[in-house]
Amino acid sequence: MTPLSPSDQLFLWLEKRQQPMHVGGLQLFSFPEGAGPKYVTELAESLRAYSCPQAPFDQHLVSKFGQSYWETDTHFDLEHHFRHEALPKPGRIRELLARVSAEHSNLMDRERPLWEVHLIEGVRGKRFALYSKMHHSMIDGMSGMRLCMKALSTDPSARDLPPIWAMQPKKKQEQSKPTPTDLISSLAQFSGAAGKQLSTLPAVAREIAKSVKKAKTDPNYVSIFQAPQCLLNEPITGSRRFAAQSYPIERIKRIGRAFDATVNDVVLAICGSALRDYLISQHALPDQPLIAQVPVSIRQDDSIGGNQIAMILANLGTHIADPSNRIEVIKASVNEAKQRFKQMTPAELLNYTALTMAPSALNILTGLAPKWQTFNVVISNVPGPKETLYWNGAKLEGMYPVSIPVDRVALNITLLSYVDQLEFGFTACRRTLPSMQRMLDYVENGIHELEVAADINHR
Amino acid sequence: MTPLSPSDQLFLWLEKRQQPMHVGGLQLFSFPEGAGPKYVTELAESLRAYSCPQAPFDQHLVSKFGQSYWETDTHFDLEHHFRHEALPKPGRIRELLARVSAEHSNLMDRERPLWEVHLIEGVRGKRFALYSKMHHSMIDGMSGMRLCMKALSTDPSARDLPPIWAMQPKKKQEQSKPTPTDLISSLAQFSGAAGKQLSTLPAVAREIAKSVKKAKTDPNYVSIFQAPQCLLNEPITGSRRFAAQSYPIERIKRIGRAFDATVNDVVLAICGSALRDYLISQHALPDQPLIAQVPVSIRQDDSIGGNQIAMILANLGTHIADPSNRIEVIKASVNEAKQRFKQMTPAELLNYTALTMAPSALNILTGLAPKWQTFNVVISNVPGPKETLYWNGAKLEGMYPVSIPVDRVALNITLLSYVDQLEFGFTACRRTLPSMQRMLDYVENGIHELEVAADINHR
Repeated sequence: MTPLSPSDQLFLWLEKRQQPMHVGGLQLFSFPEGAGPKYVTELAESLRAYSCPQAPFDQHLVSKFGQSYWETDTHFDLEHHFRHEALPKPGRIRELLARVSAEHSNLMDRERPLWEVHLIEGVRGKRFALYSKMHHSMIDGMSGMRLCMKALSTDPSARDLPPIWAMQPKKKQEQSKPTPTDLISSLAQFSGAAGKQLSTLPAVAREIAKSVKKAKTDPNYVSIFQAPQCLLNEPITGSRRFAAQSYPIERIKRIGRAFDATVNDVVLAICGSALRDYLISQHALPDQPLIAQVPVSIRQDDSIGGNQIAMILANLGTHIADPSNRIEVIKASVNEAKQRFKQMTPAELLNYTALTMAPSALNILTGLAPKWQTFNVVISNVPGPKETLYWNGAKLEGMYPVSIPVDRVALNITLLSYVDQLEFGFTACRRTLPSMQRMLDYVENGIHELEVAADINHR
Repeated sequence: MTPLSPSDQLFLWLEKRQQPMHVGGLQLFSFPEGAGPKYVTELAESLRAYSCPQAPFDQHLVSKFGQSYWETDTHFDLEHHFRHEALPKPGRIRELLARVSAEHSNLMDRERPLWEVHLIEGVRGKRFALYSKMHHSMIDGMSGMRLCMKALSTDPSARDLPPIWAMQPKKKQEQSKPTPTDLISSLAQFSGAAGKQLSTLPAVAREIAKSVKKAKTDPNYVSIFQAPQCLLNEPITGSRRFAAQSYPIERIKRIGRAFDATVNDVVLAICGSALRDYLISQHALPDQPLIAQVPVSIRQDDSIGGNQIAMILANLGTHIADPSNRIEVIKASVNEAKQRFKQMTPAELLNYTALTMAPSALNILTGLAPKWQTFNVVISNVPGPKETLYWNGAKLEGMYPVSIPVDRVALNITLLSYVDQLEFGFTACRRTLPSMQRMLDYVENGIHELEVAADINHR
């Protein structure tokens, strides 16, 4: 019986009907060569044979004296966790996204180990999909994605690769701490790092409120309270919309070279353009630019030990119609933030990060909606596998993170690189943000207008 | 803006993560003659054209000063409510039941009108299915089933029949009160009929507790506290198992003639046999017989106005191995209960019904688990359509109610007659009652052993 860490416990507390706290990953595979029409049925059969889950997939929650523990589930029922499903015809990506949107809206059964794997047949073009869903109290999004990738092989002839729930668990010393790549995980990390006891949430909220009050009177911090009120920052409901698409990284890099910008800058420019188009279509574009919270890698001196992830706030230039001007604003904003980080001590960095998250944290912890907003949207760009991966001979065509919208942050954009592709995943509350799937068209427009501005003949 | 009735409000209060309060209906159709391979895709397209829902399908919940109201949803999103899905191959009834089990486990989005219709393609043998899900605060199970049937026609050539959400609502005077066919609906009916204000739940619970205390000291009532503690009466979790099957009514009637028993008696004998086999397989058969709560029709004098539904408690004879002896015990128990009802005044009947439901009601309302149990399982046998029905040319092959298990009543058995068939629907918590789908085999055994005992050469 293992007690949950305070930060894992946090995700149980934060979860409510309108705000499920599970993360997901969608993997798209093509059939191995020579696979027959019964391929997915046989695959499902072979997966059902792995009926003995390994830790943590065999652990369920038990509650004793108000504390939650992980304990082995003695009534493990694989049929509940592993589900074989199908898309209706014509089985386009559109039908796949609708299926994942619906599944990602459903709360998980807390009496059982908090994971589900959905094997989805009927994807057009000899393909199938895996949608894996895990509760954030069990694993954070990026560790989950890494686990899904670890189940694959670079060798197309490798066979008998077990599904994620049956893989031998890593040895202790290999286990790395979760990367704080999203709002919630960062909040938990911060709280832990600052030595706060999360068991007294109101006290934490009071501490955050105190820092915020101080910061508001300190002119050096004023700039971070500029995010406009926006449709993206309304309360959310329980139903989700997931949209995803792959783009060649080379298209992004070419734009980067033309504007002397990093891949991350170009990604922000594309997202800024898409958000601008989307909010115009909803008659909801604020006059002030949207602010994105972006996890970036900041090199520190050796005492910190290699790379460190920090949260920066980037101006997305959504108030600017011209794509060239917009990307310059974004570049300047990102560079300014990076410079600021470089001059900070680790303690200052921690305080700053805490501060940028304060309004959302206050809202999440107390349910109070602050009148100010430090950012409007979360955009994470996560490095993924550099080599083509296979699962028992089936080639991984793409892999898309499905993340967690929260109250007042109704859209999460997570990108993942895979070999020569960049995969965009948009997870949103489908009621707060109607027709959010149009973001895919707006992303394509955003790339195209940057190519035109840079005089690149892409098409 | 219409305030919810106290009994409808009750279902919102009773709902929790482990105990969703929606009812469902599964309808199985065969393709019309000459339908092509794209039939279901085209059907889905044609249904999407009905984008303007009629009351109550356009109403969602809003809360003002602690009271819930129905209000027109101005952000109605048909794609959320109407879902086109598919079964994985081979598309047997087994895959269909797995799909419905999974969907019936999911809570509904309370920000939206509380209904979903799932059109399911890929059912083997040129068939498709409709799984309709509605919250009990919007409609009770039997009214929901009636509504689903009202959408169909006895005319196979009738076309342009709208889906349930687009049917013109009935005129006020046509609206009949919901039939109290299940535990919850009865509880609400009772509370309403007794003039209790459900807005003060603790007071209601106190009143029930008082009656129970009185009854326990009154020897005339002692017999109703005999239900044994049993696996069926454990707390439930959020995941469901749904199992269903059709049987020819003639098989049931033939057994009835042999034993001088009603169809309802034979149904109880079959269920008793199946429950006995199931509990033996789980090493959980109590020494004492299981008690079923059964809604039956009781003819009263003219002042009551025709038929009236009352809840009787039937001894299922699960302690008896011999099928002939078992059905005699059941017959005697049902007859005794009916006789008792006939001698009761309407007020006495009401008190008695309240009393039989008291332990479950106490448990549902207060979360306290009484040490005694008045019944172990709910078995409802509902008369359905006597003529074959069609939906835009597609023949209705079968129709199965999907009901609500609650804490301490982990299995609900609802039967529906349709032309010459009797449809059994079992809805259970799949964790409390593992492998519950085996009940289908045990039902077949139960019918067979009665046929053998009656010397009927069925096979």
